[in-house]
Amino acid sequence: MKYRGKHYRSIERQGDAVVVIDQSRLPHEFVQMELRSVESVAQAISGLIVRGAPLIGITAAYGLAFALRQDPSNKGLQSARARLLATRPTARNLDWALRAVVKAVDNVHPETRAVAALAAADALAEADVTTNAALGRHGAAVLRDLWEQRGRPSRLEIATHCNAGWLACVDWGTALAAIYVAHDSGVPLHVWVDETRPVNQGARLTAWELGAHGVPHTLQVDAASGYRLQRSVAACIVGADRVTRQGDVCNKIGTYLLALAARDNEVPFYVSLPSSTFDEAINSDDIEIEERSPAEVTHVWGRSDDGRYLRVQTAAPETPASNPAFDVTPARLVTGLITEHGLFAPGDEAWLPVAATL
Amino acid sequence: MKYRGKHYRSIERQGDAVVVIDQSRLPHEFVQMELRSVESVAQAISGLIVRGAPLIGITAAYGLAFALRQDPSNKGLQSARARLLATRPTARNLDWALRAVVKAVDNVHPETRAVAALAAADALAEADVTTNAALGRHGAAVLRDLWEQRGRPSRLEIATHCNAGWLACVDWGTALAAIYVAHDSGVPLHVWVDETRPVNQGARLTAWELGAHGVPHTLQVDAASGYRLQRSVAACIVGADRVTRQGDVCNKIGTYLLALAARDNEVPFYVSLPSSTFDEAINSDDIEIEERSPAEVTHVWGRSDDGRYLRVQTAAPETPASNPAFDVTPARLVTGLITEHGLFAPGDEAWLPVAATL
Repeated sequence: MKYRGKHYRSIERQGDAVVVIDQSRLPHEFVQMELRSVESVAQAISGLIVRGAPLIGITAAYGLAFALRQDPSNKGLQSARARLLATRPTARNLDWALRAVVKAVDNVHPETRAVAALAAADALAEADVTTNAALGRHGAAVLRDLWEQRGRPSRLEIATHCNAGWLACVDWGTALAAIYVAHDSGVPLHVWVDETRPVNQGARLTAWELGAHGVPHTLQVDAASGYRLQRSVAACIVGADRVTRQGDVCNKIGTYLLALAARDNEVPFYVSLPSSTFDEAINSDDIEIEERSPAEVTHVWGRSDDGRYLRVQTAAPETPASNPAFDVTPARLVTGLITEHGLFAPGDEAWLPVAATL
Repeated sequence: MKYRGKHYRSIERQGDAVVVIDQSRLPHEFVQMELRSVESVAQAISGLIVRGAPLIGITAAYGLAFALRQDPSNKGLQSARARLLATRPTARNLDWALRAVVKAVDNVHPETRAVAALAAADALAEADVTTNAALGRHGAAVLRDLWEQRGRPSRLEIATHCNAGWLACVDWGTALAAIYVAHDSGVPLHVWVDETRPVNQGARLTAWELGAHGVPHTLQVDAASGYRLQRSVAACIVGADRVTRQGDVCNKIGTYLLALAARDNEVPFYVSLPSSTFDEAINSDDIEIEERSPAEVTHVWGRSDDGRYLRVQTAAPETPASNPAFDVTPARLVTGLITEHGLFAPGDEAWLPVAATL
């Protein structure tokens, strides 16, 4: 997508490295950085320099390719895979992308494994863009239908949580892809952006993305989403980190509350996901919920009035904090799953063979 | 309640002034300040130096008394009342306390009005302490019953939102009074404290209060409350800013989401309130929801690593934000209203004559 008139992807291969945007510095600084080793990739994922389920997968795929340049043996492959898999436990796409690269190099001679892996990672990145463009088309059709059903009001309000935009993918986004495509086609959207504590992906990334693309939006605290749904929101649309066979949706902490408020106010709740986020084998009770540092709860990063990027502590120093990064929204609260293959109801049997092919 | 071994009230009269704790600086600095004019009182309420429905009422009562020292005429009385009433629109107790002082000076000669008003404010402050002690007894009985029903587990988890502690009242608190009394009587409580964006009354005040009193607790982001309710919380207990005849509860933004999650997980949801928070005449649709500055959403105050108290901006400077301070939880989601007269179900007819006497 465009930023200051120039088209960017969240990850771009340049020679033997990839260039990513340091998302931990946005929106205050737009800084790109090169990653060219498995360790730098692992640290970029752990440190939220790159984040978002699809982008985590693609970046890790490149990380595995970089590792094979150093050690193309089976042992080296498994060791690098384990290192990358340990960075973040919840997003399905991480495991999925690593499996795809392993499969691509499995019967390849060690000497050419690194090249094959890089090609596989490139292919995953290109496929991600195609997939997300499809998510955008299918999701935009859902939003346009809502707008038509309501008699084409002058403003259609949509709520979203966290960042499921192009920064979370390679391009387009998942939930935000629908919003970009609908907006570009003339549906007068207004997006309510949850700030998404503790890391503020909504305040920092989604509001920035929407602003850069010219989509009208308003930021609010996460706690205000229920108030907003009691009033004027036409639909919710979010991304996902892992979706079960039953249609239960693991996504950024707070998604469950948004879905509860949507149901209580009879507002449809959509989840936009590439099939790579689908996990046929898992039950929602078995999803590992990443517990991140308490410091993300007790401190907030931002720009001070004198222009420095720093953190402030809100709570007293001795305050214990807990920081689960995801929650699970039961399928019963989900209106529809928007995928690259179209719209499915959770539990829809037609969805399962489609998802299982991936 | 005690802080560093010394007993404090959130507001204490000293001669012709009142001394309050500057709650905007907690927990990083414990600073008391004197208020001795109606204007300083109005600014302290607007600026959240004092906050919490009961404390707002008491402080405003003193403000009216201070105003009458300058101008004890009917015109002066009405003008000061209007100034104070305009500070914050949502809390019922503000109007209630001002009415009580007006009633106390109505038939009093202007010369002695200031003295009568000060006496009335003192009486309100004392009554608040008595009322909150009763809220604590009744609320603690509810928590103890839960503990007994569950077979006296080694830990009973309670969730709360915002600060409904002694800092929100004169002493004890409303929701936290129940927690203090139950804890002191040996019920092994563990409190999940929502940080309560945007002003972080949970992170800054509730965690600090609980820590000072020795009640085990853990801070979490507001968005994590649903996750926690899916797991291990035995009950929710919150305060209120205005409660309707039907039992609808207007309280800090986010309370509605917590109540939805409690209902979805069959966890009882209690509201602790003095009768002065009850508004017999209003329907929930007519409650004015205070819209505060967008800067509270786009910025966060706290202590920097080098020890300065400052704010950081999370969102890009041009990001529009909305900041409703309260929401309304429908009575259907409320298990019980804990009052100084005991526990009532919302809509319980026995509750109405009790509330109407105040």
